Amino acid sequence: MASAHQTMMSSDTPSSLASQLPHSLCDVLNFVFFEPAGVMTLILGIDPGSRITGYGVVRDTGRGCVYVASGCIRTGSGELHERLQIVYRGVREVIQTYGPVTMGIEKVFMARNADSALKLGQARGAAIVAGAEENLEIAEYTATQVKQAVTGTGGANKEQVQMMVMHMLKLTSKPQIDASDALAIAICHAHTRSSLLPHGLGTARSRGGRLRL
Amino acid sequence: MASAHQTMMSSDTPSSLASQLPHSLCDVLNFVFFEPAGVMTLILGIDPGSRITGYGVVRDTGRGCVYVASGCIRTGSGELHERLQIVYRGVREVIQTYGPVTMGIEKVFMARNADSALKLGQARGAAIVAGAEENLEIAEYTATQVKQAVTGTGGANKEQVQMMVMHMLKLTSKPQIDASDALAIAICHAHTRSSLLPHGLGTARSRGGRLRL
Repeated sequence: MASAHQTMMSSDTPSSLASQLPHSLCDVLNFVFFEPAGVMTLILGIDPGSRITGYGVVRDTGRGCVYVASGCIRTGSGELHERLQIVYRGVREVIQTYGPVTMGIEKVFMARNADSALKLGQARGAAIVAGAEENLEIAEYTATQVKQAVTGTGGANKEQVQMMVMHMLKLTSKPQIDASDALAIAICHAHTRSSLLPHGLGTARSRGGRLRL
Repeated sequence: MASAHQTMMSSDTPSSLASQLPHSLCDVLNFVFFEPAGVMTLILGIDPGSRITGYGVVRDTGRGCVYVASGCIRTGSGELHERLQIVYRGVREVIQTYGPVTMGIEKVFMARNADSALKLGQARGAAIVAGAEENLEIAEYTATQVKQAVTGTGGANKEQVQMMVMHMLKLTSKPQIDASDALAIAICHAHTRSSLLPHGLGTARSRGGRLRL
């Protein structure tokens, strides 16, 4: 299962010099050269789906977000439990690789129908359990909140969100659309955390959204 | 989390002498005195829910099912990720305690609405990932298939299913309703596995239902 998952997980082409380097070195360079001193919280955004789950990791510097990584976890064509396991293990692997301390995930108010809501719920459950098992704090945001945080308007379309994500994170190439949505969720989570805290200082217990089953 | 989960997981009052004894001794007695020689596969049934997840374990002797354990995992009133983690850890704990090799779970065709389907899907995703992480084979059954297997008719109500579960497993007290449903799913899974196999001999790869996301 682990090897199957590894072949199915893809990362977007990084845009900065730092992100073209090995991860540990990239982290050092980001810390030393690219970021101002202050709060530097690693934030994970997850856009869950029954076929593709997007992920995006940004570093909240206290003055803005810096791109760390993004990509998507493709569940393939196996049986349900195998595909949910790919989501679960994929999210855990992303967390173990990049070390975020907090996770934002898209909240779904209206699915097309009960069947698609059930499928989305299953993938969402697998992703949330993965975050919980890695001891991350988890918050959820509606699509409108994410668009508002990234573009300034809740009515933006996917392309506008993608363009603003590229602009804000100084990306020179387009991320895959699910990865871009995940980065937008991470940015939204960073903004909401900052706006709720005095002097922009984050704590592990602060949340932008409250999650209820 | 583990202690919270333990307090929330309850088992039904056992009905047989063997089930009132410590688990390991119960297993020995079941094996030596209560069961005919032949196939003795331990089967787990799961009835997932956003508030209560029922579980039931039966032993398929090749001539029928013998009660092993049942109960429910209550998710309490915490945040979503805590509640999903309780389902995930609870199902894993049941598997580690009783050692089933295969798991049946109720398939949902029609939820009341998209919102309830999403909630159910999340709990279902957590339960399925737990089974997959414990390397169980997993099959799903519709409510009609479960009723048909237990009562002989797909139109039976919950009380009729509960009465038949008590009769088939020789229980002297009523299991909690979600636990009873889980036992019915386990019985259905046992029947379907047996009917698909020559001479009723089970193999690890045989499935009654095929799962697709």
